[in-house]
Amino acid sequence: MNKQQLLLQERFNEKIKFSEEYLNKYGRDWYQGLIPSPIAIFFPENEEDVTDIIDFASKNKLKIVISGGRTGLNGGATATDGEIVLSTEKLNKIQWDEENNEVICQPGVITDNAKKFVEEKGRFLPIEFSSTSSSSIGGNVATNAAGAKFIKYGSTKDHVTGINVILPSGKKIQLSKRSLKDATGPNLMEIFYGSEGVLGLITLITLKTYPIMDFKETILIKANNLNTVQSKLINKKNGLISSLEFWDKNCHALTGGEVDSDYIILLELVSQEKKEIEKFLENISEKFGDPVSLLNSKQASKMWSARENIPVLLSDMNAYKLDICVPIKSLQKYLEDINALNLGVKIFAFGHLGDGNVHLNLVGDKKINESKNKIYEVTKIHSGSPSAEHGIGQRKKYIWTTFSDYSDKHELLKTLKKSIDPENIMGPKVFFD
Amino acid sequence: MNKQQLLLQERFNEKIKFSEEYLNKYGRDWYQGLIPSPIAIFFPENEEDVTDIIDFASKNKLKIVISGGRTGLNGGATATDGEIVLSTEKLNKIQWDEENNEVICQPGVITDNAKKFVEEKGRFLPIEFSSTSSSSIGGNVATNAAGAKFIKYGSTKDHVTGINVILPSGKKIQLSKRSLKDATGPNLMEIFYGSEGVLGLITLITLKTYPIMDFKETILIKANNLNTVQSKLINKKNGLISSLEFWDKNCHALTGGEVDSDYIILLELVSQEKKEIEKFLENISEKFGDPVSLLNSKQASKMWSARENIPVLLSDMNAYKLDICVPIKSLQKYLEDINALNLGVKIFAFGHLGDGNVHLNLVGDKKINESKNKIYEVTKIHSGSPSAEHGIGQRKKYIWTTFSDYSDKHELLKTLKKSIDPENIMGPKVFFD
Repeated sequence: MNKQQLLLQERFNEKIKFSEEYLNKYGRDWYQGLIPSPIAIFFPENEEDVTDIIDFASKNKLKIVISGGRTGLNGGATATDGEIVLSTEKLNKIQWDEENNEVICQPGVITDNAKKFVEEKGRFLPIEFSSTSSSSIGGNVATNAAGAKFIKYGSTKDHVTGINVILPSGKKIQLSKRSLKDATGPNLMEIFYGSEGVLGLITLITLKTYPIMDFKETILIKANNLNTVQSKLINKKNGLISSLEFWDKNCHALTGGEVDSDYIILLELVSQEKKEIEKFLENISEKFGDPVSLLNSKQASKMWSARENIPVLLSDMNAYKLDICVPIKSLQKYLEDINALNLGVKIFAFGHLGDGNVHLNLVGDKKINESKNKIYEVTKIHSGSPSAEHGIGQRKKYIWTTFSDYSDKHELLKTLKKSIDPENIMGPKVFFD
Repeated sequence: MNKQQLLLQERFNEKIKFSEEYLNKYGRDWYQGLIPSPIAIFFPENEEDVTDIIDFASKNKLKIVISGGRTGLNGGATATDGEIVLSTEKLNKIQWDEENNEVICQPGVITDNAKKFVEEKGRFLPIEFSSTSSSSIGGNVATNAAGAKFIKYGSTKDHVTGINVILPSGKKIQLSKRSLKDATGPNLMEIFYGSEGVLGLITLITLKTYPIMDFKETILIKANNLNTVQSKLINKKNGLISSLEFWDKNCHALTGGEVDSDYIILLELVSQEKKEIEKFLENISEKFGDPVSLLNSKQASKMWSARENIPVLLSDMNAYKLDICVPIKSLQKYLEDINALNLGVKIFAFGHLGDGNVHLNLVGDKKINESKNKIYEVTKIHSGSPSAEHGIGQRKKYIWTTFSDYSDKHELLKTLKKSIDPENIMGPKVFFD
C-alpha cells in the first residue's frame, strides 16, 4: 500500500478496500474501453461517512468517482487515474411514505428492489429498462434514466419529488418540488438530473409511485412505414399506451422471426378499466392498413422476450452501438436517410417509437468509425441527440465538439461545475478534459 | 442629466431615453410597493445593442434590469436603484417555422400577438392567463408562466425547444432540446426558466405549437368538496380537460352568482373528435352526486367572464393576494385548515383545480400580515409552494427565510448566480439582498 492508502485505511478501517478484486470490480462500469485504476473503494454507510471522505480527498488532493450499480455504458463510473471510488452499495435503505404513496430510497437501492418494494405496497414504479436488476436508484436519477415506459410515464426525473445532495464542498442540501407549480426561481433539482456524479452525491431520493394497472394487452403490428403508426397512435395521448417498441427486419431475422415487413411494432396497452382497452382495440383494426394482431399472453411474452434479446444478440456479434434520438416525426425519414448512405456495414435498428429513440447497431469488419461519423452528420440534419439515454461519461466527450449545437451547453456546464466543484473533486474525468 | 446619462446618450443616441415619462413607465412592473428610480431606459433593436449595453454597464459599474411586458406582480422588473432598464419592446420580431410547426419569437413579442400569429397558421399556443394582452414571450419564459391551460399543456417551459441567451458576460449562447430524450448532461435550459432576468437576456425563443381543437364544451359543477371532483376527473388523464377552474362561494357571491354550493367548478373539454366529448359527457352525470350542467355557448361565455372578473373585483377591494400551490390531493384539506384558522379576515379563494394552485385573497382592515403568516404555516404543513405562478422578484425574497425548505435552494441559486454573473450586473435586487 502506498502512503495515501495507508492513511485511508487508518481513517476508514473496514469501510474501505484496497484488494485487486475490489479495485477491478468496483473500479469500472460496463464500458470496456477504459482500464480501471482506482486507489481504493470506499463504502459509506451514512452521510457522515460521505462528508468524511470528501474532507479527506480535499485535504489530500485526491479525487472521487461515484459508483452505483455500474451499469453505465460510457465510463461515467470508471476510475482511471488513482481516484477513490465511492460505492453507494451500502447506502441501500428504503422506506415507504404511506400518506403520499412515495418511496424514499438511499442511492444504492437496486432499481428492481425498489420496484418490488413498491409493488408490495400495491403501487408501480415505472423505471424500466434492461439493466434494472443491477442499476441503482441513485444512478437512475444522476443519469435521468429513461426506457420503455417513457411514452406514458416520462423519465426518472419525472418521478422525483425530492433529493438530498452532498455537494463536492461537503455541504448537504435538500431540494424538493411537491407542488405542480412552484415559481420560486428555477427548479434546481434539474441540474442534478443527468449530472453523472460530477456535482455531488445524491444521498436520498423521494419518488412518486403510480397505480398498478389491472388490465394489459399486447398488440403486434407489422408495418413498412413508421410514420403511419406514429400518426395514428402517438398523437392520440389517451394514456393507454405504456410501451411502443419497434425493431427492423434485420433485428427480426436475428431473433428468428419470419420477415414479412420492414418493421415489427409491439404496443402495450394498460388501463384500470377493461372497456377502455376494448374500445381502443375495436378502433385499431379499422385504422391500420397494416396487419394488426392481438397477442395472447404466451405470444406476448414470446415477443417481449424477443425484444429484450435483441441487444444481447447484438452484443454477442460485437455490434457498435449508437444511441440516437430524433424528433418523433422525423424517425422514418431519418432511418431512410441512414440506409441511403450505403455504408457497407450491416445496420440493426430498434428502439422506442414513442419518443424517437433508436439504437443503431453497426456490424461489419471495417468502416465502423467512418460509418459512425456519417450517421452523426445525418443525425445533425435531423436535430437529433447523439446520446439519448446513455449519457456522456468519459467515452462520449467528443460529442461536445462533433456536435457544434452542444458547444455552448458544454461551456455553461463547465461554468456550473467550476462553481459547485472548484477543486474538481468529483468525477474529474466525466464531461470535461 | 448626470455624467453617466450623458455618456449613455452619446453612445446610444435614439435608442436610450431619460425623460420622467419613460423612467416612470418603464421603470417598474405592476407591483406598486416599490418606487422606480432607473437612470435610463434602453431599447435595443438587435443582439449587438444588448452586448453593447452590457459592455457599457460593466465598464461603468452600472446595473441592468430587464423589462418585458411589465406585468409581473413582485417587482422583478422594477429598477429601484439607478439601474439601466433594458426594455425588450423593440425586440419584437416573430417568424414561423413551417416544417416544425414552431414559432420563433424575439423576447419582446406580446403574448397575445404570438398567439394570434400562431392561430393564423392554423395552430394553437397554449399560454393563457389574464395578462397575455401585455405580457411578453421573453417574460413568459423567464418566469415560466403557467395559467389556466396547465392541466393539459403544462407551463411555458414545456413548449420551448430552443433559446438564445446573452449572458451577463456578454457571451451569446444557444441551447436547444428538440428530441424527447437527450442524455448529454443536465438540460441547462432549465436554469433560465424562472430566472427572472438575473442570469441573462433571452434573445430568441422557439416554441412548439399544438393543433387547434375543433370541439369545445364547458361544464359547470356545483360541489361542496373538491376531492370528489378531483378524484373523478384528474386521475383520468385523457387529455380532454383543457381547463379546470374553481372558486369558492365568497368569490361566487362577489360575481353576483346565486350561492348554493361551497364551490363552483368550471370544466372545459376540448377534442378534435366530437364523439370523444360526447362519451365523456355521457359518463359525467352518472359519476357525480353534485349537480352538473352542460353550458350553452352564451352561458359558458358568461361563466368564463365571471371567472376572469374575480381577480379584478378583488383588486378593487384592495385584497391581499397570496399565490399558493399545494399537492392536488391536499387542496380540499388545505382550504379547510385555512378556514379553521378563523383569521378574522374574509378569504376569497379561486384557482386551478388541475394543479393545486389556489389564489387566496384576504380582505379586512387589519390582521392581514398576521393572517398571511398563519396561512404560510399551514402551507408548510401541506408541503405547498408560497409562489406558485408569480415568482420572487424583489417583493417575495422573505420566502427564502420564512420557508426553511427553500433555504438550500437559495444558497445554490446564489452559487449559480455568482458563477454566471460575478459582477451582479443583471437584476441586482432580484432573488438576493
